[in-house]
Amino acid sequence: MPASDVTEPQDQPWSRRRLRSANERLLLDRLRALGAASRAQLARDTGLSKPTVSSALASLESAGLVREAGTHTPERGRTAVLYAPDPAAGYALGVDIGRGRLRVAVADLDGAVVARTDVRNPARTSAALAALVVDTARLAIARSGADPAEVAHGVLGTPGVYDERHRRVRYATHLPGWGRAGLVDRMREELGVPLEVHNDANLAALGEYAYGAGAGSRLFAYLLIGTGLGMGVVSEGRLFTGAHGLAGEIGFLPWPGRGKPQRLEDAVAGVAVVESARRFGMSGRPTAKAVFDAARQGQPAAVRAVELEAERIAHTVASAAAVLDPDLVVLGGGLGHSAGLLLRPVRERLRTLTPLRPRIAPSRLGTDAVLLGAVATALDTARNVVFERRTAGT
Amino acid sequence: MPASDVTEPQDQPWSRRRLRSANERLLLDRLRALGAASRAQLARDTGLSKPTVSSALASLESAGLVREAGTHTPERGRTAVLYAPDPAAGYALGVDIGRGRLRVAVADLDGAVVARTDVRNPARTSAALAALVVDTARLAIARSGADPAEVAHGVLGTPGVYDERHRRVRYATHLPGWGRAGLVDRMREELGVPLEVHNDANLAALGEYAYGAGAGSRLFAYLLIGTGLGMGVVSEGRLFTGAHGLAGEIGFLPWPGRGKPQRLEDAVAGVAVVESARRFGMSGRPTAKAVFDAARQGQPAAVRAVELEAERIAHTVASAAAVLDPDLVVLGGGLGHSAGLLLRPVRERLRTLTPLRPRIAPSRLGTDAVLLGAVATALDTARNVVFERRTAGT
Repeated sequence: MPASDVTEPQDQPWSRRRLRSANERLLLDRLRALGAASRAQLARDTGLSKPTVSSALASLESAGLVREAGTHTPERGRTAVLYAPDPAAGYALGVDIGRGRLRVAVADLDGAVVARTDVRNPARTSAALAALVVDTARLAIARSGADPAEVAHGVLGTPGVYDERHRRVRYATHLPGWGRAGLVDRMREELGVPLEVHNDANLAALGEYAYGAGAGSRLFAYLLIGTGLGMGVVSEGRLFTGAHGLAGEIGFLPWPGRGKPQRLEDAVAGVAVVESARRFGMSGRPTAKAVFDAARQGQPAAVRAVELEAERIAHTVASAAAVLDPDLVVLGGGLGHSAGLLLRPVRERLRTLTPLRPRIAPSRLGTDAVLLGAVATALDTARNVVFERRTAGT
Repeated sequence: MPASDVTEPQDQPWSRRRLRSANERLLLDRLRALGAASRAQLARDTGLSKPTVSSALASLESAGLVREAGTHTPERGRTAVLYAPDPAAGYALGVDIGRGRLRVAVADLDGAVVARTDVRNPARTSAALAALVVDTARLAIARSGADPAEVAHGVLGTPGVYDERHRRVRYATHLPGWGRAGLVDRMREELGVPLEVHNDANLAALGEYAYGAGAGSRLFAYLLIGTGLGMGVVSEGRLFTGAHGLAGEIGFLPWPGRGKPQRLEDAVAGVAVVESARRFGMSGRPTAKAVFDAARQGQPAAVRAVELEAERIAHTVASAAAVLDPDLVVLGGGLGHSAGLLLRPVRERLRTLTPLRPRIAPSRLGTDAVLLGAVATALDTARNVVFERRTAGT
């Protein structure tokens, strides 16, 4: 009795569907890695038979996940149709919530940013900030031309850590009221996009590791210096989060100042630069950026304030080095614009502080690191969601 | 044509030997986990056939790796011989090199310490210290009754980090001359035992994770406080070493003291306790232990010195917490004897310093943590070496 006469087990149709779906996923992932490719190339590359490739591509095309992308005519042989992932099959949303600015980007499934909206953050309450996030995200989605329903996933970068159990952000001391329970749920509901929340320094580290100065590092620490002070750590390509997701909350490092104990964040963040400059005699109410600009011009009070900042950043790097032993520390965040000015004095101070001296480099992504890390993280999920959604029931 | 008539491929005999060796190793590992067991139990437990178990046990017995360990008579059925790993098949050596004391242990392959020798460390040069290590290790091996050739592997715990490329210990600031190249090679040669060198705090962390207070922790930091200050970090059961094996060298954390920059080690290590006690009016030249004893008696200068020490340990814990986010910090090392006295004030100070507060516990292994971590690490290698050596050529 030939095997094909045997009654198929109950789970056979489901298994076949699953196998077909796995093949389609394999082809889509290869197309993302290779760019456009023909059936023959895909068959060679994946080991699947040409009929299997043809049928999977047809399914992917009718699901709107793959499109024809021109033709290729080899020296010998027939002209072949090239296929590529359809970048417009879905979208991902990234948001960087800073105390000073809100940055929003919408990316297509190729990872290309198709809309970008930055606004100042004047919000003084958590409700106002949540409303600003929702409005700005809506604006960015409208500008992208995407149907809001096609935005498959969003990631918010914020100071602090999201506490999934109590559904609230913790330790975001610079955003008043931001720790209220349910805020993220409300934004998710109003925007109609699934939202995840991640620590801003962690996202910046992932962004800088994926696209910037951190590539290839074995143990990489990203210092986010701006309104606050944070650190993201990437160990062998993976985020190092600690026991409760709080690794890198280096702003809480005790800073033995005069009077009551202070935190390192109070000594290093932008406001400390402004305070020192004024203490050293700079007049008016300059911004941190203005202090760095004045230091570049040689203004003595500003120069002293920048020197003091370099000393404190060196202390931060030395502390991270003594605990973690990174091979690379990247200086980023709002003060990243002045990494060029800080780099030399930070390295010099570090020499007097410790024999453990990692390489120090400026951020390559600058103030976009958190946003690009958020987009990259959202994209991972969005690609999965779009694939599942568009292949379901076929 | 039956399959057995087919000519065997060339590599068949070698493959068979490898299969037999894998089965023997499997049985030996099961016996280590189960304790004594009969052939029938082993067959049930491993899924191997009884003839295969019998033949492998016979090989292991003739190689001296397994011995008969009594009999078992079930309620029904025949009396069965029990087998167990022969603990005397080989030995492992562990050494803890402290500035004050040298601790040496020889363990059999069951991990039982069969000889232990502790001596004071009066060495003032690296040559004297190396000679002391070799002599003390020889003495311990002699006391164990083991043939020196049967000591299959040794692990030395030392402050600092072993630099394999330059064949020297680095950053062992408290052991004068200990950084000289070739010292470890010379000890290895004189002792005739393969030696590895590991950081003492890392070994203590592994020891405490394997046998002590660290069991089950997700991210566990062991503070080694004594002559120096070190930290070992175990993340999800594995040592977290950083990019160059220097993670946890927290003694190098800058400590903003008066005058030239100091290191946290200078503020926390035993000698700092003595200095504070004398500054607060304690007379004579007490040891750190004597200061803690006096504090227990309520001697005011000693009480103040211990309070200051607690404050500085809290600073250390807060620093580690801000960078790593451990769920548990264990206080160990030479000052571990006073963890009971320190625990409450450290926790109290920590509350004023940071919202990130890991659980703090005293070491369960006390001053033996480094030594037991060294023995455990040496044992892993020794078991492999002995198995390979005794089954080679069979």
